[in-house]
Amino acid sequence: MAIKATNNFIFIIRDKTESEKGGLLIPTQSVEKPHSGIIFSCGKMVRDPDLKKAIGKTAIFHKTTGQEIEFEGDTFVVLPDEHILGIK
Amino acid sequence: MAIKATNNFIFIIRDKTESEKGGLLIPTQSVEKPHSGIIFSCGKMVRDPDLKKAIGKTAIFHKTTGQEIEFEGDTFVVLPDEHILGIK
Amino acid sequence: MAIKATNNFIFIIRDKTESEKGGLLIPTQSVEKPHSGIIFSCGKMVRDPDLKKAIGKTAIFHKTTGQEIEFEGDTFVVLPDEHILGIK
Amino acid sequence: MAIKATNNFIFIIRDKTESEKGGLLIPTQSVEKPHSGIIFSCGKMVRDPDLKKAIGKTAIFHKTTGQEIEFEGDTFVVLPDEHILGIK
Amino acid sequence: MAIKATNNFIFIIRDKTESEKGGLLIPTQSVEKPHSGIIFSCGKMVRDPDLKKAIGKTAIFHKTTGQEIEFEGDTFVVLPDEHILGIK
Amino acid sequence: MAIKATNNFIFIIRDKTESEKGGLLIPTQSVEKPHSGIIFSCGKMVRDPDLKKAIGKTAIFHKTTGQEIEFEGDTFVVLPDEHILGIK
Amino acid sequence: MAIKATNNFIFIIRDKTESEKGGLLIPTQSVEKPHSGIIFSCGKMVRDPDLKKAIGKTAIFHKTTGQEIEFEGDTFVVLPDEHILGIK
Repeated sequence: MAIKATNNFIFIIRDKTESEKGGLLIPTQSVEKPHSGIIFSCGKMVRDPDLKKAIGKTAIFHKTTGQEIEFEGDTFVVLPDEHILGIK
Repeated sequence: MAIKATNNFIFIIRDKTESEKGGLLIPTQSVEKPHSGIIFSCGKMVRDPDLKKAIGKTAIFHKTTGQEIEFEGDTFVVLPDEHILGIK
Repeated sequence: MAIKATNNFIFIIRDKTESEKGGLLIPTQSVEKPHSGIIFSCGKMVRDPDLKKAIGKTAIFHKTTGQEIEFEGDTFVVLPDEHILGIK
Repeated sequence: MAIKATNNFIFIIRDKTESEKGGLLIPTQSVEKPHSGIIFSCGKMVRDPDLKKAIGKTAIFHKTTGQEIEFEGDTFVVLPDEHILGIK
Repeated sequence: MAIKATNNFIFIIRDKTESEKGGLLIPTQSVEKPHSGIIFSCGKMVRDPDLKKAIGKTAIFHKTTGQEIEFEGDTFVVLPDEHILGIK
Repeated sequence: MAIKATNNFIFIIRDKTESEKGGLLIPTQSVEKPHSGIIFSCGKMVRDPDLKKAIGKTAIFHKTTGQEIEFEGDTFVVLPDEHILGIK
Repeated sequence: MAIKATNNFIFIIRDKTESEKGGLLIPTQSVEKPHSGIIFSCGKMVRDPDLKKAIGKTAIFHKTTGQEIEFEGDTFVVLPDEHILGIK
């Protein structure tokens, strides 16, 4: 059975090649590096309705937040909802 | 009579052989190690409805949180609900 | 007249022989030692309905919390409700 | 005109001879010493209904909290309501 | 036009001769010295209904709180409502 | 187009000659120096109804709070609403 | 697809030439330097209704807050709503 986020946590499948591709985010030296990934699961206590219906969309988040867990080959970044800056 | 969690605490029967089996969670060196276990009891003040009905399911939680108590041979990890990252 | 807890405080009659009997809680060295005792009085602002009706039941709580007062030979541990982990 | 407590403050007439009589509270060395006194006035924002109707009853409180004021020979200990542990 | 308190602030005309008269408050050495003065204006966000209708009454407050402003010869002590211990 | 305050911020046109005129506020050495100025704009989240309708009136505020911005020759002091002590 | 702010975050397209033009804000040495930019996207949890309908308007914000991300040549400053001082 798949993992399901609880509380206001969000599970994200991280863009692993992000720093290599240099596509979405080209942080300069003086710029904090946000990260991104695909939203996999949202806990029921997530507050922003735009986030609740964003499964499969790309989330932008702080680099310094979140903890990673590995599960059957995927790396999930787990963050509380308030650390998601935006989606696209 | 069995122990019952109060407030927003959750009693979890820890996966004792987790670090040996290497199954569910294969944390790499640079990764924080979450832990897991079976949810045994939820206090009435637990907020996420998905957690309230998750008795018997596996909870994923921070390694650094929770306190352990032993009772009749079982080890319970006791955490507040907001420290449960996800269930499966 | 008997003491009555106020606010969200709970008065507990401590299991004095707990460390000797080794029954309920057998904490190992790496384990935080919770304590236990009989719930004597609950203040009106206690929030968990399971706690409100638990007079006479055993409460499990953090060792590091609570203050003790002596009254007519009994030792009460006084804690706020949110420090009770569970009852049995 | 008499002093009247405001906000969630409670005015208590302290048991002055408490440490001499050794009656109600016999704190041992390893025990925090609570204090007690007669409730003289409760502010309108006191939350516990048991406290609101406890004028004239004895309150048990932390020794380390509260400030004392003297007024016409009486010593009042003034504390916020959440520092009252119990009444009798 | 007169000064009017805003938010939950209270303007008090301080009892200037308080320490000389030794009347109302005779603090001993081991006692925190509260101050007193006449309530001049209450902001609309003051919460205790007893304080809202106490214009002209004497307020007792902590010595260590409040800031003083001078205006046309009067000294006002300005404090948030929750620092008023009592009135008389 | 004119600047408009947002959230619970208040834009104030500072009394520039205040320390020279010595009129409104004559702070003595032992007295915290409040400042004053004309209220120019109130954000929609300002809570005190007296402040919401005080455009053009004089606000008294803490000297130590607020940040200044210059715009077309005017100096605005920008503060959150809870730092306004009073109006006149 | 365009980036969309989530939670109470606001995406701003920064006025890059601000310090060169010396137009809007001419901070003196003793003055905190606010920044400004065009509001690009507001998350659904933004609270001030004036901010919710301010897409395309200029926001004034603290220099010290916000993090920058680059996306397809634009620099966005991302801040929580409560750090926007005003709009024009």
